[in-house]
Amino acid sequence: MSNNSFAAASEIECDFDGVLMRPFDPCDHDLDANFRLTRFADLSERTKKMPKDVHSKVMSVEQPRGEPEAKGQKETMPEPEPQQPKIALDISARGSVFTKPTPLFGDLQLVQATDFGYPIIDDPYLMGKIACANVLGEMYAKGVVACDNMLMLLAVSTHMTEKERDTILPIMMRGFKDCAMKAGVNVTGGQSVVNRWCIVGGVATSVCKEIEIIQPNKAVPGDVLLLTKPLGTHVALNLHKWMTADGDKWKFLKHSFSEEEVGKAHSMAVKSMCRLNRITAQLMHKYGAHGAIAIAEHGLLGHAETLAACQQNDVALSICNMPVINRMSSVATQCGDSFQLMRGRCPEHSGGLLICMDREASIEFCKEMITMEGPSARSWIIGIVANGDKTVNFSKQRVIDVNI
Amino acid sequence: MSNNSFAAASEIECDFDGVLMRPFDPCDHDLDANFRLTRFADLSERTKKMPKDVHSKVMSVEQPRGEPEAKGQKETMPEPEPQQPKIALDISARGSVFTKPTPLFGDLQLVQATDFGYPIIDDPYLMGKIACANVLGEMYAKGVVACDNMLMLLAVSTHMTEKERDTILPIMMRGFKDCAMKAGVNVTGGQSVVNRWCIVGGVATSVCKEIEIIQPNKAVPGDVLLLTKPLGTHVALNLHKWMTADGDKWKFLKHSFSEEEVGKAHSMAVKSMCRLNRITAQLMHKYGAHGAIAIAEHGLLGHAETLAACQQNDVALSICNMPVINRMSSVATQCGDSFQLMRGRCPEHSGGLLICMDREASIEFCKEMITMEGPSARSWIIGIVANGDKTVNFSKQRVIDVNI
Repeated sequence: MSNNSFAAASEIECDFDGVLMRPFDPCDHDLDANFRLTRFADLSERTKKMPKDVHSKVMSVEQPRGEPEAKGQKETMPEPEPQQPKIALDISARGSVFTKPTPLFGDLQLVQATDFGYPIIDDPYLMGKIACANVLGEMYAKGVVACDNMLMLLAVSTHMTEKERDTILPIMMRGFKDCAMKAGVNVTGGQSVVNRWCIVGGVATSVCKEIEIIQPNKAVPGDVLLLTKPLGTHVALNLHKWMTADGDKWKFLKHSFSEEEVGKAHSMAVKSMCRLNRITAQLMHKYGAHGAIAIAEHGLLGHAETLAACQQNDVALSICNMPVINRMSSVATQCGDSFQLMRGRCPEHSGGLLICMDREASIEFCKEMITMEGPSARSWIIGIVANGDKTVNFSKQRVIDVNI
Repeated sequence: MSNNSFAAASEIECDFDGVLMRPFDPCDHDLDANFRLTRFADLSERTKKMPKDVHSKVMSVEQPRGEPEAKGQKETMPEPEPQQPKIALDISARGSVFTKPTPLFGDLQLVQATDFGYPIIDDPYLMGKIACANVLGEMYAKGVVACDNMLMLLAVSTHMTEKERDTILPIMMRGFKDCAMKAGVNVTGGQSVVNRWCIVGGVATSVCKEIEIIQPNKAVPGDVLLLTKPLGTHVALNLHKWMTADGDKWKFLKHSFSEEEVGKAHSMAVKSMCRLNRITAQLMHKYGAHGAIAIAEHGLLGHAETLAACQQNDVALSICNMPVINRMSSVATQCGDSFQLMRGRCPEHSGGLLICMDREASIEFCKEMITMEGPSARSWIIGIVANGDKTVNFSKQRVIDVNI
């Protein structure tokens, strides 16, 4: 594809937040027309996360200093701390992890989230925004609306030219900062290094009262499951990348999907990923949500399982609807479901919240979301909470093609 | 060098914290005898940090959305926020950045530090410890003794085998956690991804009262400059790596330095990097320190310049002594000072604090450091604070070879 098509495809992605903005064009910045931010990491379609089972395996290994038993016993030394417990550290299966809130001064709690990863879109400004919205998403899932501080984590690629580095970095930082500003929080520091791959991420911190936190574990039978953003971001991003590269994958798919459709899907994905779940978190308080989780790298089902497993009551989550960015379920199916979208395992980036809430409250919640944020803030009832054994019932999905 | 020599060289590095421990040997864990953690990043002798001037350049660039002027004006869109100030975000020249403390609830302050980088030693347990001590060092420089929470940042290399990953990760995490435990703080979460290079780092957070923070900017003429750890860690690590690899660099240097000397220097460097600056911070309060900074990637002079520039009073820092790990200044000199050690620009890892303090208080400070932590907690008076223009006078250095 020519660079013009690249611009055309991303053109419509910028008309949100009520402001029209020109899309990023490398030539505007005297960069090579073929400059693509996403090329500075080569994970390809893979997710940046380690699989969940790897995490469990790593976490369950007890590796005291000096283990396993020495072969030549001579050097064997005593354990530094013989009563060392199992590794409690949870470098978690989720995109980021909250601290168990710990009382500080009176009833204050410290809540934190961190995430970092690789560029998933080529526009550095919007990439900065997405990285920020993504980290904040973990705070909002806990009901924490007010963040006190953001740090940014950055790495420039050793393969970038100086010109590329000096151009891209400030734009990405600005995107991050603008998004944080929208969330009402300042970015006051961070760390930047050189790395083989380009990295962008952050750390969100809030010192808040217990009442500001919504515990995730209060679902009761009869609740519904709400999802606040459509699925399919990962599919849309990859499809757009294939189209831009004009390789074999696109040659196979281009008979079924038009460039316009791909551009629209990509635009919707970017818009969705940039959108903060902040008002969602506010309304979770207002309508008494019984728990929520942010949808990220482990896909809808992966995170639903985590949410189900932590419940206090003997409940199970039943998911029957899959709101997916228009036509992306078709793409996933044509790819033989290598994306695992229909199996609920497709990664999402800066995804929506999956919320447990009383059925009647959920209707009002959905209405007020749209009143406050407009039609792009549509939520979907995707399932119910029933009696059960803290698992997820995920079968007979009905796809809802989303076109907002 | 054989694997035996590798073990021998690192053997003595583990006899600190009052506990003897067996050094890491890949074979103990059924890994290949040639497994070296430091090979999973290829920065070589370079520092992970971008040069200071790159930072300044990047920070000073104003890149409003839509700039520069469009060539084909048709698509030009209005600025989202026309009054957008210059980028205030300081992804700083220092290893990590503190937030400007912001009042939260009454007189509470939020202080944070973050840093991440690549393995600099091959022992995963001690590497975890160093990464943790390094992040905490930035808190201690501010006088913040009590941290409330630690997050860990990790990436496994895409080039590691599953076996390597599953072996190394828990050990590294345990080192990090043990160090945090020693500092009296829990590691409650973090993020782990796959990356081309292995990454280890963390985030430290403290919610504290203003009185717990020591501002860095109160130096007065007549103060002395204290340094709490010897310099030369970067030289010692590289020398040890060259020896282990037995390449041309070591062939050139082996006539002047014995394997035992290299092993000792490496051991001293590791010991020093693992050591927390926590008691240092406690005593900074007791003896009324007028400001401090942690010595990290920009070397003694780089960080001294930052400390000088932020002073309230018209003072200059004069540095005349350079305590350096035994023989490492010789190594640096024989390498044509490519390390920039004698020019004050050699990076340090998890370095000491450079402290401004009243002269008489400093004597007592140094004595009490040794009383509390033993002879390895020796500090050096390396210079004075005089009237001046917030710069650093760095000439005619006298090297003090340190052998503790």
